[in-house]
Amino acid sequence: MSATISLEECRALAFEAFSNVGVCRPQAEETADHITRAEADGCKSHGLFRLPGFIASVRSGSADPQAEPDIVDAAPGLVAIDGRRCFAPLSVARGRVLLAAKARSQGIACMTIRNSLNFSALWPDIEPLAEQGFVAFTFINSQSFVAPAGGTKALFGTNPMAFACPRGDGKAPMAFDQASAATARGELQIAARDGHEAPPGSGLGPDGQPTIDPSEILKGVQLPFGGYKGSAIALMVDLMTGGLSGGFFGYESRAAYNDDGGPANTCQSFIAIDPLRLAGPGFRAHVEALFERLLADGDARLPGDRRLANRARTAEEGITVEDRLYATVRELAGRG
Amino acid sequence: MSATISLEECRALAFEAFSNVGVCRPQAEETADHITRAEADGCKSHGLFRLPGFIASVRSGSADPQAEPDIVDAAPGLVAIDGRRCFAPLSVARGRVLLAAKARSQGIACMTIRNSLNFSALWPDIEPLAEQGFVAFTFINSQSFVAPAGGTKALFGTNPMAFACPRGDGKAPMAFDQASAATARGELQIAARDGHEAPPGSGLGPDGQPTIDPSEILKGVQLPFGGYKGSAIALMVDLMTGGLSGGFFGYESRAAYNDDGGPANTCQSFIAIDPLRLAGPGFRAHVEALFERLLADGDARLPGDRRLANRARTAEEGITVEDRLYATVRELAGRG
Repeated sequence: MSATISLEECRALAFEAFSNVGVCRPQAEETADHITRAEADGCKSHGLFRLPGFIASVRSGSADPQAEPDIVDAAPGLVAIDGRRCFAPLSVARGRVLLAAKARSQGIACMTIRNSLNFSALWPDIEPLAEQGFVAFTFINSQSFVAPAGGTKALFGTNPMAFACPRGDGKAPMAFDQASAATARGELQIAARDGHEAPPGSGLGPDGQPTIDPSEILKGVQLPFGGYKGSAIALMVDLMTGGLSGGFFGYESRAAYNDDGGPANTCQSFIAIDPLRLAGPGFRAHVEALFERLLADGDARLPGDRRLANRARTAEEGITVEDRLYATVRELAGRG
Repeated sequence: MSATISLEECRALAFEAFSNVGVCRPQAEETADHITRAEADGCKSHGLFRLPGFIASVRSGSADPQAEPDIVDAAPGLVAIDGRRCFAPLSVARGRVLLAAKARSQGIACMTIRNSLNFSALWPDIEPLAEQGFVAFTFINSQSFVAPAGGTKALFGTNPMAFACPRGDGKAPMAFDQASAATARGELQIAARDGHEAPPGSGLGPDGQPTIDPSEILKGVQLPFGGYKGSAIALMVDLMTGGLSGGFFGYESRAAYNDDGGPANTCQSFIAIDPLRLAGPGFRAHVEALFERLLADGDARLPGDRRLANRARTAEEGITVEDRLYATVRELAGRG
């Protein structure tokens, strides 16, 4: 019931699908790369599954397929980007160069992005910063789907945050990427499609009552993870994205959404810090000592370990794409 | 069963107790202020309850009551502090001036503190930054008490983080301050003292099994809030504190601890960002619009609202101190 294709094929299919609807080469390349990295790491909910949505946002006019982001050098440690309704992976890739240069010279830098269209995975945005030696944060909002603790109305986006830290011994950076919602919306969509239940605590139905039916939650509201503490994290993410960028909060993004099934107009921020100038040259070895202890304790795992294992496997074996999605993707790529 | 005293009296008692064991004026003033702010906001677990521990750490020699922190201007956006075993509130107060100046000129700045002794509340550390208009984070570790998700051995500290954001209309900043542990250790200690149960999910007993007996959890390990997501936050906090400062991770702090009942040698970091240079002058009004929506939804509350209500009340009515603690505090202050 599924096809197996190489990562190169995945990238080429996505690139061709974008080109076919008039997406400029830089946006097409960066967004195809983003989708491919999600597939490589086994994150199906942010891989080719998202391609039809991206294409829909071009067809509906909500995305500007020719836009180049406007990058402002706002202060010695600050970068402010207006994405001009481009796909966010281009805003990130363009801005990250200046962000890294500032973090290198100042020791820390921050970048905000507003007015970009996104529903991609987050870790690919900061992994390159950690590969350059930075400790890095990123925060992103979405249109509002999540009620605050104690409430029943959608206010926050699913509001993921990601954090990455360089490792020693030539190892790939540790990176986690987690929604402030109890469950990622992509997972709920896939559960609804496949007829599975949602994890308890994922959300409320349209009647304001808890349910494990993912379709009902998608019509109602999602809930934050971890009760009021997760709700505070979700609030922080909205302030660090819609607030700090001067763009849309989750509810403003939702109000502006045209229901094309594509990515919403969202905001993102980054912080990159050079750890060596604070902790000295022993930083990476010190981090490895902590990780070694963690990995020695029962079933404890480092965040992202499963992704890295998937990455090693898919580089060899390629990825599987469910038949119906594969047919859709081939059609979008003009190979139908 | 309790005395009622004014905030001035609380501050004076704490200051005298510190002076009586030879703590220098700057450390005594800042730490007494910290304790008093916790009491003012109704956070008993970080108020006078902590005073005997601070005093014990002077008597045992783990704190240096005469130390002045060493403040290094590490980069245009970085401040690195070695507390030289002083009480952390002095490191924070001394370094925050340079941190704020850097954040103002660079747009963002980061400060790390290592080798300071702390078990205080966190929001008082960043509230002054938000009052100056900065969006601010702080992270702090403790000696290890918390197992990672999937594990049974103490690795992380309780690892609180706090986040503060300026508000509009002359309102006090929004600030949250929450442990990465499911339950603050101070709350478990108070529950054990008072014979109450711990909230389910707080931790494991020495046998590695879940329990709601706070005394058993204090002998075993605490658990992170929110499962593997809270565990990732706890890991992030250890990396942002022990890692970034080049000081102790939680388990290193525990190994160095002399069991005097006082604060451990811990690490902290701060990030301060000037939102106006990214979001423009509409930032505060935009934030208020988000908060207004949140407050209009059912039982949803802004983090810290209860603290601010307590603050308004205790300014008028003073604070209550449980009789036995009050007797101890008076004795430490030389008024026994």
